[in-house]
Amino acid sequence: MDFKLKIRISNGKDTAMGPGKAQLLEAIQECGSISKAAKKMNMSYRRAWELVNIMNQCFKTPLVITSHGGIHGGGAEVTPLGLSILHTYRNIEAISTSSANQELSSIFSHLVQS
Amino acid sequence: MDFKLKIRISNGKDTAMGPGKAQLLEAIQECGSISKAAKKMNMSYRRAWELVNIMNQCFKTPLVITSHGGIHGGGAEVTPLGLSILHTYRNIEAISTSSANQELSSIFSHLVQS
Repeated sequence: MDFKLKIRISNGKDTAMGPGKAQLLEAIQECGSISKAAKKMNMSYRRAWELVNIMNQCFKTPLVITSHGGIHGGGAEVTPLGLSILHTYRNIEAISTSSANQELSSIFSHLVQS
Repeated sequence: MDFKLKIRISNGKDTAMGPGKAQLLEAIQECGSISKAAKKMNMSYRRAWELVNIMNQCFKTPLVITSHGGIHGGGAEVTPLGLSILHTYRNIEAISTSSANQELSSIFSHLVQS
Protein backbone atom coordinates (compact mmCIF):
# COMPACT_ATOMS: atom_id res chain seq x y z
CA MET A 1 0.00 0.00 0.00
CA ASP A 2 1.37 3.39 -0.97
CA PHE A 3 -0.97 5.55 1.12
CA LYS A 4 1.06 8.11 3.00
CA LEU A 5 0.94 10.98 5.42
CA LYS A 6 3.28 13.71 4.19
CA ILE A 7 4.33 16.45 6.54
CA ARG A 8 5.64 19.83 5.47
CA ILE A 9 6.89 22.52 7.80
CA SER A 10 6.42 25.97 6.40
CA ASN A 11 7.61 29.42 7.43
CA GLY A 12 4.41 30.78 5.90
CA LYS A 13 6.01 31.23 2.49
CA ASP A 14 8.37 28.35 1.74
CA THR A 15 8.52 24.74 2.81
CA ALA A 16 11.44 24.67 5.24
CA MET A 17 11.29 20.91 5.68
CA GLY A 18 9.34 18.18 3.92
CA PRO A 19 9.68 14.66 2.53
CA GLY A 20 11.94 15.59 -0.42
CA LYS A 21 14.19 17.93 1.56
CA ALA A 22 14.59 15.37 4.36
CA GLN A 23 15.57 12.68 1.86
CA LEU A 24 18.04 15.07 0.21
CA LEU A 25 19.67 15.86 3.58
CA GLU A 26 20.07 12.13 4.21
CA ALA A 27 21.60 11.66 0.76
CA ILE A 28 24.04 14.58 1.25
CA GLN A 29 25.04 13.18 4.63
CA GLU A 30 25.65 9.79 3.03
CA CYS A 31 27.36 10.97 -0.18
CA GLY A 32 29.28 14.01 1.10
CA SER A 33 28.38 16.05 -1.97
CA ILE A 34 25.32 17.71 -3.45
CA SER A 35 25.96 16.38 -6.97
CA LYS A 36 26.28 12.77 -5.78
CA ALA A 37 23.21 13.18 -3.58
CA ALA A 38 21.25 14.57 -6.55
CA LYS A 39 22.33 11.63 -8.71
CA LYS A 40 21.30 9.16 -5.99
CA MET A 41 17.85 10.77 -5.87
CA ASN A 42 17.45 11.02 -9.67
CA MET A 43 17.20 14.75 -9.25
CA SER A 44 18.97 17.42 -11.30
CA TYR A 45 21.97 19.11 -9.68
CA ARG A 46 20.20 22.42 -10.19
CA ARG A 47 17.09 21.24 -8.34
CA ALA A 48 19.15 19.84 -5.46
CA TRP A 49 20.96 23.18 -5.12
CA GLU A 50 17.63 24.98 -5.17
CA LEU A 51 16.28 22.83 -2.32
CA VAL A 52 19.48 23.30 -0.29
CA ASN A 53 19.25 27.07 -0.81
CA ILE A 54 15.62 27.18 0.29
CA MET A 55 16.42 25.18 3.44
CA ASN A 56 19.44 27.32 4.27
CA GLN A 57 17.43 30.52 3.82
CA CYS A 58 14.51 29.27 5.93
CA PHE A 59 16.69 28.57 8.96
CA LYS A 60 18.68 31.05 11.03
CA THR A 61 21.85 29.03 10.44
CA PRO A 62 22.50 26.74 7.46
CA LEU A 63 21.54 23.06 7.39
CA VAL A 64 24.13 22.30 4.69
CA ILE A 65 27.61 23.79 4.19
CA THR A 66 29.74 23.34 1.11
CA SER A 67 33.49 23.46 0.60
CA HIS A 68 35.35 24.25 -2.59
CA GLY A 69 38.41 22.70 -4.22
CA GLY A 70 40.59 19.95 -2.83
CA ILE A 71 41.61 16.77 -4.65
CA HIS A 72 38.03 15.53 -4.97
CA GLY A 73 36.45 18.89 -5.81
CA GLY A 74 33.81 20.52 -3.64
CA GLY A 75 32.06 18.63 -0.91
CA ALA A 76 28.96 19.22 1.15
CA GLU A 77 28.15 18.45 4.72
CA VAL A 78 25.00 18.47 6.81
CA THR A 79 25.61 20.71 9.83
CA PRO A 80 24.86 19.64 13.42
CA LEU A 81 21.70 21.80 13.23
CA GLY A 82 20.79 20.06 9.94
CA LEU A 83 21.15 16.63 11.56
CA SER A 84 19.10 17.75 14.54
CA ILE A 85 16.30 19.20 12.37
CA LEU A 86 16.28 16.03 10.26
CA HIS A 87 16.01 13.85 13.37
CA THR A 88 13.22 16.01 14.81
CA TYR A 89 11.35 15.99 11.48
CA ARG A 90 11.46 12.16 11.34
CA ASN A 91 10.15 12.15 14.91
CA ILE A 92 7.26 14.43 13.95
CA GLU A 93 6.37 12.06 11.10
CA ALA A 94 6.41 9.08 13.46
CA ILE A 95 4.47 10.80 16.26
CA SER A 96 1.80 12.13 13.86
CA THR A 97 1.38 8.81 12.08
CA SER A 98 1.02 6.90 15.30
CA SER A 99 -1.16 9.36 17.22
CA ALA A 100 -3.57 9.93 14.30
CA ASN A 101 -3.40 6.29 13.24
CA GLN A 102 -7.13 5.62 13.55
CA GLU A 103 -8.09 8.76 11.59
CA LEU A 104 -5.52 8.02 8.88
CA SER A 105 -6.74 4.44 8.49
CA SER A 106 -10.27 5.76 8.14
CA ILE A 107 -9.27 8.06 5.26
CA PHE A 108 -7.01 5.42 3.66
CA SER A 109 -9.92 2.93 3.62
CA HIS A 110 -11.75 5.25 1.18
CA LEU A 111 -8.79 5.79 -1.18
CA VAL A 112 -8.41 4.11 -4.54
CA GLN A 113 -5.10 2.28 -4.96
CA SER A 114 -3.16 4.28 -7.55
CA MET B 1 3.81 33.77 13.56
CA ASP B 2 3.15 32.02 10.29
CA PHE B 3 5.02 28.80 11.01
CA LYS B 4 2.84 25.87 10.09
CA LEU B 5 2.58 22.12 9.97
CA LYS B 6 1.01 21.13 6.65
CA ILE B 7 -0.37 17.65 6.20
CA ARG B 8 -0.92 15.95 2.88
CA ILE B 9 -2.50 12.56 2.40
CA SER B 10 -1.27 10.82 -0.69
CA ASN B 11 -2.33 7.69 -2.54
CA GLY B 12 1.30 7.29 -3.60
CA LYS B 13 0.78 9.35 -6.75
CA ASP B 14 -1.55 12.28 -6.08
CA THR B 15 -2.38 14.32 -3.01
CA ALA B 16 -5.86 13.10 -2.09
CA MET B 17 -6.26 15.63 0.72
CA GLY B 18 -4.19 18.61 1.82
CA PRO B 19 -4.52 22.20 3.03
CA GLY B 20 -5.73 23.66 -0.29
CA LYS B 21 -8.18 20.87 -1.06
CA ALA B 22 -9.65 21.00 2.45
CA GLN B 23 -10.16 24.76 2.16
CA LEU B 24 -11.76 24.29 -1.26
CA LEU B 25 -14.19 21.69 0.14
CA GLU B 26 -15.18 24.13 2.89
CA ALA B 27 -15.71 26.90 0.34
CA ILE B 28 -17.82 24.65 -1.93
CA GLN B 29 -19.90 23.60 1.08
CA GLU B 30 -20.42 27.26 1.99
CA CYS B 31 -20.99 28.66 -1.53
CA GLY B 32 -22.86 25.75 -3.18
CA SER B 33 -20.89 26.10 -6.40
CA ILE B 34 -17.36 25.50 -7.63
CA SER B 35 -17.13 28.85 -9.42
CA LYS B 36 -18.17 30.84 -6.33
CA ALA B 37 -15.83 28.75 -4.17
CA ALA B 38 -12.96 29.43 -6.61
CA LYS B 39 -13.68 33.16 -6.53
CA LYS B 40 -13.77 33.13 -2.72
CA MET B 41 -10.34 31.47 -2.70
CA ASN B 42 -8.84 33.72 -5.40
CA MET B 43 -8.31 30.61 -7.47
CA SER B 44 -9.10 30.12 -11.15
CA TYR B 45 -12.24 28.11 -11.96
CA ARG B 46 -10.03 25.79 -13.99
CA ARG B 47 -7.72 25.14 -11.02
CA ALA B 48 -10.67 24.54 -8.67
CA TRP B 49 -12.13 22.00 -11.13
CA GLU B 50 -8.75 20.32 -11.38
CA LEU B 51 -8.51 19.94 -7.59
CA VAL B 52 -12.09 18.60 -7.39
CA ASN B 53 -11.30 16.09 -10.13
CA ILE B 54 -8.15 14.89 -8.40
CA MET B 55 -10.03 14.43 -5.11
CA ASN B 56 -12.92 12.62 -6.78
CA GLN B 57 -10.52 10.29 -8.60
CA CYS B 58 -8.46 9.54 -5.48
CA PHE B 59 -11.49 8.31 -3.52
CA LYS B 60 -13.70 5.31 -4.24
CA THR B 61 -16.78 7.56 -4.26
CA PRO B 62 -16.80 11.30 -5.04
CA LEU B 63 -16.28 14.00 -2.42
CA VAL B 64 -18.06 16.61 -4.57
CA ILE B 65 -21.05 16.21 -6.87
CA THR B 66 -22.25 18.77 -9.37
CA SER B 67 -25.66 19.43 -10.88
CA HIS B 68 -26.43 21.09 -14.19
CA GLY B 69 -28.99 23.69 -15.24
CA GLY B 70 -31.77 25.19 -13.14
CA ILE B 71 -32.48 28.90 -12.71
CA HIS B 72 -29.15 29.61 -11.05
CA GLY B 73 -27.06 27.38 -13.33
CA GLY B 74 -25.08 24.41 -12.06
CA GLY B 75 -24.40 23.89 -8.39
CA ALA B 76 -21.98 21.77 -6.44
CA GLU B 77 -22.31 19.91 -3.19
CA VAL B 78 -19.91 18.20 -0.82
CA THR B 79 -21.11 14.62 -0.34
CA PRO B 80 -21.52 13.00 3.10
CA LEU B 81 -18.23 11.17 2.45
CA GLY B 82 -16.62 14.51 1.54
CA LEU B 83 -17.80 16.07 4.80
CA SER B 84 -16.58 13.08 6.78
CA ILE B 85 -13.13 13.09 5.09
CA LEU B 86 -12.86 16.85 5.69
CA HIS B 87 -13.74 16.44 9.36
CA THR B 88 -11.25 13.57 9.76
CA TYR B 89 -8.53 15.56 7.97
CA ARG B 90 -9.01 18.52 10.33
CA ASN B 91 -8.79 16.07 13.24
CA ILE B 92 -5.51 14.67 11.90
CA GLU B 93 -4.11 18.21 11.71
CA ALA B 94 -5.14 18.92 15.29
CA ILE B 95 -3.92 15.59 16.69
CA SER B 96 -0.55 15.86 14.89
CA THR B 97 0.02 19.47 15.92
CA SER B 98 -0.78 18.77 19.54
CA SER B 99 1.02 15.44 19.91
CA ALA B 100 4.21 16.64 18.18
CA ASN B 101 3.95 20.09 19.74
CA GLN B 102 7.34 19.97 21.47
CA GLU B 103 9.18 18.76 18.34
CA LEU B 104 7.42 21.38 16.17
CA SER B 105 8.30 24.20 18.56
CA SER B 106 11.90 23.03 18.50
CA ILE B 107 12.02 23.28 14.67
CA PHE B 108 10.06 26.57 14.61
CA SER B 109 12.57 28.14 17.02
CA HIS B 110 15.25 27.77 14.33
CA LEU B 111 13.17 29.23 11.48
CA VAL B 112 13.59 32.72 10.09
CA GLN B 113 10.37 34.73 10.06
CA SER B 114 9.47 35.10 6.37
